Amino acid sequence: MISFTLAGTDCDWAQGLCSRLRETRNLSMRLASELGPEDMAVQAMEDASPTKWHLAHTSWFFEKFVLERYIESYAPFDARFNYCFNSYYESLGARHPRPKREILTRPSLDRVLAYRRHVDLALEEFFDGGLAYAPESYGLIETGANHEQQHQELMLTDILALFAANPLRPCYRSPRSHNPGPEPRAQKWIAFEGGVRRMGMDGEGFCWDNERPGHEALLAPFRLADRPVVNLEWLQFMEDGGYDAPSLWLSDGWALANRERWRAPLYWEHCDGQWFCMTLEGLQPVDPAAPVAHVSYFEAQAFAQWAGSRLPTEFEWEAAAQTAGREANDLGSDALRPLPAGAGAGMKQMFGDVWEWTGSAYLPYPGYRPPAGPLGEYNGKFMVGQHVLRGGSCATPSGHVRASYRNYFYPHQRWQFSGLRLASDAS
Amino acid sequence: MISFTLAGTDCDWAQGLCSRLRETRNLSMRLASELGPEDMAVQAMEDASPTKWHLAHTSWFFEKFVLERYIESYAPFDARFNYCFNSYYESLGARHPRPKREILTRPSLDRVLAYRRHVDLALEEFFDGGLAYAPESYGLIETGANHEQQHQELMLTDILALFAANPLRPCYRSPRSHNPGPEPRAQKWIAFEGGVRRMGMDGEGFCWDNERPGHEALLAPFRLADRPVVNLEWLQFMEDGGYDAPSLWLSDGWALANRERWRAPLYWEHCDGQWFCMTLEGLQPVDPAAPVAHVSYFEAQAFAQWAGSRLPTEFEWEAAAQTAGREANDLGSDALRPLPAGAGAGMKQMFGDVWEWTGSAYLPYPGYRPPAGPLGEYNGKFMVGQHVLRGGSCATPSGHVRASYRNYFYPHQRWQFSGLRLASDAS
Amino acid sequence: MISFTLAGTDCDWAQGLCSRLRETRNLSMRLASELGPEDMAVQAMEDASPTKWHLAHTSWFFEKFVLERYIESYAPFDARFNYCFNSYYESLGARHPRPKREILTRPSLDRVLAYRRHVDLALEEFFDGGLAYAPESYGLIETGANHEQQHQELMLTDILALFAANPLRPCYRSPRSHNPGPEPRAQKWIAFEGGVRRMGMDGEGFCWDNERPGHEALLAPFRLADRPVVNLEWLQFMEDGGYDAPSLWLSDGWALANRERWRAPLYWEHCDGQWFCMTLEGLQPVDPAAPVAHVSYFEAQAFAQWAGSRLPTEFEWEAAAQTAGREANDLGSDALRPLPAGAGAGMKQMFGDVWEWTGSAYLPYPGYRPPAGPLGEYNGKFMVGQHVLRGGSCATPSGHVRASYRNYFYPHQRWQFSGLRLASDAS
Amino acid sequence: MISFTLAGTDCDWAQGLCSRLRETRNLSMRLASELGPEDMAVQAMEDASPTKWHLAHTSWFFEKFVLERYIESYAPFDARFNYCFNSYYESLGARHPRPKREILTRPSLDRVLAYRRHVDLALEEFFDGGLAYAPESYGLIETGANHEQQHQELMLTDILALFAANPLRPCYRSPRSHNPGPEPRAQKWIAFEGGVRRMGMDGEGFCWDNERPGHEALLAPFRLADRPVVNLEWLQFMEDGGYDAPSLWLSDGWALANRERWRAPLYWEHCDGQWFCMTLEGLQPVDPAAPVAHVSYFEAQAFAQWAGSRLPTEFEWEAAAQTAGREANDLGSDALRPLPAGAGAGMKQMFGDVWEWTGSAYLPYPGYRPPAGPLGEYNGKFMVGQHVLRGGSCATPSGHVRASYRNYFYPHQRWQFSGLRLASDAS
Repeated sequence: MISFTLAGTDCDWAQGLCSRLRETRNLSMRLASELGPEDMAVQAMEDASPTKWHLAHTSWFFEKFVLERYIESYAPFDARFNYCFNSYYESLGARHPRPKREILTRPSLDRVLAYRRHVDLALEEFFDGGLAYAPESYGLIETGANHEQQHQELMLTDILALFAANPLRPCYRSPRSHNPGPEPRAQKWIAFEGGVRRMGMDGEGFCWDNERPGHEALLAPFRLADRPVVNLEWLQFMEDGGYDAPSLWLSDGWALANRERWRAPLYWEHCDGQWFCMTLEGLQPVDPAAPVAHVSYFEAQAFAQWAGSRLPTEFEWEAAAQTAGREANDLGSDALRPLPAGAGAGMKQMFGDVWEWTGSAYLPYPGYRPPAGPLGEYNGKFMVGQHVLRGGSCATPSGHVRASYRNYFYPHQRWQFSGLRLASDAS
Repeated sequence: MISFTLAGTDCDWAQGLCSRLRETRNLSMRLASELGPEDMAVQAMEDASPTKWHLAHTSWFFEKFVLERYIESYAPFDARFNYCFNSYYESLGARHPRPKREILTRPSLDRVLAYRRHVDLALEEFFDGGLAYAPESYGLIETGANHEQQHQELMLTDILALFAANPLRPCYRSPRSHNPGPEPRAQKWIAFEGGVRRMGMDGEGFCWDNERPGHEALLAPFRLADRPVVNLEWLQFMEDGGYDAPSLWLSDGWALANRERWRAPLYWEHCDGQWFCMTLEGLQPVDPAAPVAHVSYFEAQAFAQWAGSRLPTEFEWEAAAQTAGREANDLGSDALRPLPAGAGAGMKQMFGDVWEWTGSAYLPYPGYRPPAGPLGEYNGKFMVGQHVLRGGSCATPSGHVRASYRNYFYPHQRWQFSGLRLASDAS
Repeated sequence: MISFTLAGTDCDWAQGLCSRLRETRNLSMRLASELGPEDMAVQAMEDASPTKWHLAHTSWFFEKFVLERYIESYAPFDARFNYCFNSYYESLGARHPRPKREILTRPSLDRVLAYRRHVDLALEEFFDGGLAYAPESYGLIETGANHEQQHQELMLTDILALFAANPLRPCYRSPRSHNPGPEPRAQKWIAFEGGVRRMGMDGEGFCWDNERPGHEALLAPFRLADRPVVNLEWLQFMEDGGYDAPSLWLSDGWALANRERWRAPLYWEHCDGQWFCMTLEGLQPVDPAAPVAHVSYFEAQAFAQWAGSRLPTEFEWEAAAQTAGREANDLGSDALRPLPAGAGAGMKQMFGDVWEWTGSAYLPYPGYRPPAGPLGEYNGKFMVGQHVLRGGSCATPSGHVRASYRNYFYPHQRWQFSGLRLASDAS
Repeated sequence: MISFTLAGTDCDWAQGLCSRLRETRNLSMRLASELGPEDMAVQAMEDASPTKWHLAHTSWFFEKFVLERYIESYAPFDARFNYCFNSYYESLGARHPRPKREILTRPSLDRVLAYRRHVDLALEEFFDGGLAYAPESYGLIETGANHEQQHQELMLTDILALFAANPLRPCYRSPRSHNPGPEPRAQKWIAFEGGVRRMGMDGEGFCWDNERPGHEALLAPFRLADRPVVNLEWLQFMEDGGYDAPSLWLSDGWALANRERWRAPLYWEHCDGQWFCMTLEGLQPVDPAAPVAHVSYFEAQAFAQWAGSRLPTEFEWEAAAQTAGREANDLGSDALRPLPAGAGAGMKQMFGDVWEWTGSAYLPYPGYRPPAGPLGEYNGKFMVGQHVLRGGSCATPSGHVRASYRNYFYPHQRWQFSGLRLASDAS
């Protein structure tokens, strides 16, 4: 466990950055602590990466974007790691192909952990020297910490994909109680007014480039469900032939669902007359009252069609989130699975539990400019063919998301904790 | 050539429908008149269809949506044709797979032409009986005519794809003069005000479901180029390394361009130090002043990035088109290729010449509802993963498009007459 | 119809060559005479070629190997045809890719027929000049005629593949009587002695390079079935779960049969409780007494395993064929389908009806040398991964095969008239 | 390390079996001893398996074929391992798909090692009880030991494939001296008489089913090179354009070599004007005098064509091997790479160094019968599409091969230590 100290700096924000960085770096290690070296070496599929690769890549990020840039005397831990652990930055040189990351059994886990320590020590010295607080380097360190948080969520979803493909269905951690909850509370519609609303990030705090610039959007009056769609409702969709009714589906989704024989959300298995779902605590009975997860955009859209509703736009979601409570079943809650909504009125579970598919394609905001330099590749170059998800999940590190936060995946992808909340026109 | 007559009806709109239908049906035949039966039998690739299939499918459309529905005594020409010539209507039963349409060497061309005559005669009787003018059937006939116009454009782009793949590079028609024009006129920026604008179709006339409902959209002030990007500019992009610069490209586009070794627009060939383009009149020198065509969304976006601009949104385009002139180099002009802009001020070539890629994903408008019945499959189920193109091309039948018209293709597709017009923020 | 005449030559073998060539060239035209231009333009799959391509390629063969070589003044009909109609001769330059032969809608059928006439006329002049009878050119003309015969069989099997994929199941020719025959005659075993036997072609007559050199092979005593396996037996194999029993199958065959869901021979369809087979006369009831056709090596091997037998080696087959009768249900019989065995004792149907899979891989004979020049590519370069079939089929031109004739296909291929005859060790 | 003891048995063959088994089981552990758990978890490609899987599968083999069969009280270590570690035995139930073996990060390495110990202990008790020496169980134990030896070679070739794909090019073991040797000795031809020769295994000792039955084969007089083709000669082939000359290649090989851009044997890399080869000791300069390895059948055949020779048949090879010396650079020599031939006359390196491709397809011998029961799937079901290799390699455990031993791979496969020896007709 690392411990960044601050030499002669006692202002709050500097303390804050230092402690956030320390906590983030430590959390990555903690998330991997129960895994064996083999678990950390393999990727379940092309979209996923080995845990070890995540641990190395997040260190490479600091090395490349902070240490090599600001510390003249900094010696890279191993010059060849730039090839191994660059994810997709064309401007930073050639890189190992993503679908083959598991080939990297060397560097070994031990050596990757040494790499992490090397980077942590250099960051500590950087803090000690006080240089970390210059605006530019401060921003890059904050970016690095947020970047590592994103990979923490991926570590969990990728290991779940790996264990779900393993015939032994191993547990990431020992199962805690999965008492079947009570019936889910009925969904209620909450009405929102239309009008011109401010969207995206205007202020000073950290955010990703794709949340900027703040801008105005015109909303028609709309309604949102007070909670995400739950498993009981998804079972009703299945029983009503949802996976057999082409009229509900987008054409590409229907073709894919048939080709891959989708009959239920990813990770669901039918055993002895009951539905189970593979979770980070192994195969567990589907909880009727918990939000459905691991559904694709195609499935989410078909469900909404079946329900006579639609998916919200990302701006409808954001308008609602601007006033919603921030309490969340996120990674900090340590449930590691979506939980039933609590009691009470108003919008619930806008943050945490499941990422919520929106009907909005992932596109640049008006006036969007990617940052200069390699970080310009971070979000902008993916702005085609994907849809926006909002709100974070049970695997998202605490404090990582906000109302303007935009996640994005392809319409066919299912291995994230992705669910949905219904919307409809107010009329 | 068919000749629909009107028994005892002399009101204008009835005459109009009748003559439009007659012209449309005849035009399909005329477009195919120079092709041999083999040319009409083969599809160049999965996205394209054989000419013969287009001729049959457009007849099937009338048979299925009009004749079988409204004429009790109507006998289908051949019951098996429903399987052969249904394109993608899940609700109308099983169908022959699209990538294998060329397997249908039977029914022969002669029999398909007999099918067309059978349908034409039945439609004529329908008109004679006066039944065609009831609102519902009127609408379906108009839909059928517009549907056939869409396939007329596809007949041309599909035959071009076929001939471009043929080592003999045959001509669809004898080449006319391709005098290298003068230098292209310099592009000028036209500024447009922002504000809330009415978009889509509010009125009564024919339009597709995806243009409805009319609704309001909020625009920031913007500028549009007065003409599409021309080949000379595209050559400059190429010479400046546009196809070698990952920083200009979306990630998926860069991967595809490398995998398929794109070095120029589709159909361009470099021979003896000069660029040629395969056209409906065979291989012709690239005209520097004509709008570039046969570029994908990925290429269009990279070009705009290179030019320091961006693609317009579909609403920016529509706002500009609402006041633009309607003159167009379309199929009625019979040039069969994009032409240089004419002289004069103001927005040019908003209609005709090339479909213009917009930065907008093809999504439903707020409040969109697909029509009831099989026609609900016409546009709605394709609303994912595609981008909107606007304005029609040199292969679009005259009168087919309007300011609110939305065409859509996948970001990788290039075989249409697809080009681009630049936009930028007004500031 | 062409008519080669012989100026001042009356020796028998010259007359023979001339008439064989004339008949062969005319037969190709006759085989195509019932097809429409579209039927002749499309290939059902990568392994098959369009009829038109066969007609052109066989002419190109004479142009390239005879006319251009021996007639100094010969002007190729169209220089670009070398690219279009070269099949696989690397030494003769680049060529149009095989899976895309149908793209060649131009040259049109008319032009291909003109090409044939052009070549025929040049050959006629070549004969008139007496030059055709020099040993080398004589051999090449004979090769060309045999080559064209091979393509005649392919014309039939390729058009069958095309029509079998067409949902209308069209007929290549009007169906003649398909009276269900009597029960098949029981299979009898014929014993053959072992010993060193002469195999391949020793003599002077025409044969392919892969039949040479004649050489000795050692055979153990063996038995052969007196007739090929018939459909009734194949139905018993199916009913006994032959397609569900991995223990009968080679590993690669089992994997393929499952992937492609083989449940019966290619072209078999189960309708209303009865098995039908697509034939050149359309969909016809399976004749229990006729030899099974359209089975792969994998299926043939599984059947033999199920029957407690094995496939013969190609030398066992050849030893038996050396003394068998030469009467054959081949293309000359004009049945266009395998027929039940006739009465009488002894080996039957060694020639014609169905090509018989052997257990022998297609490999060079000891001392094999490919011919010098481009014809060296004719047979030698395919000597890996394929199995030998013997005896010709109902679609093989009369006189084309002999006891030493070696056909070869990949173990998965099924679109030929390929069947099997059982063998077993004599003990 | 295990130590099988023999209770009350002192006959030689029993001691022999016991000690061979012990040595074999220990050798597997020793081969894995330098690898980290991650190295043992990943497979480089579909053809390769993770080391851990090899360790488990070879134990499963004993469990399934010996322990469960002969020890009534035997409790399987984990019933689910039958699904995990069955390789391809259809008759033993469903199994984990081969291309996904690396998904099995659980069971962990520790647990697999415990599995090995569990099986070893049970085998020890089986020996103690004296039951291991009944003929049938004796045979199965011997089969299990030979099976494990095969997997030992695969462990080495599979880890080499993994490390060769790793950008760090790690070493399986520390490099020993790779002094560039002297020029290779000139190849000499050794003549062999023709005639009827006895092939395959007639006697009593252990052999695989595919070596039986012993039978007679007829050989024409032939000559064999006294040593395998060496790297210097391969370099000459490359410099002479061997990889660019379609006339040398089989058609399928030429297509593959172009598609995959083969320019040299697998694992060869050109750096700074010199050729290196990835070995178990990392990237090393190519030794001109050592036998070439990691070539496919396609390449071997093209080389032989280029050299004006051919590959030997498997019977020519076996006839020569029947009298050749048995000394071998095999796994017992611990060189882990092919070495230059030693001095002296006569046939050299018939055993060890590199597996030698033969021109013979892998087919059953006359009278071949697979064993009854699941072991019938061991060799027989792969008898299509592959070619026979003979003689063992530097990675083959000592004592594993013999003159009649038949290895087999597909013509495209290159990751084994596969080379070639030239043959020619004696004339």
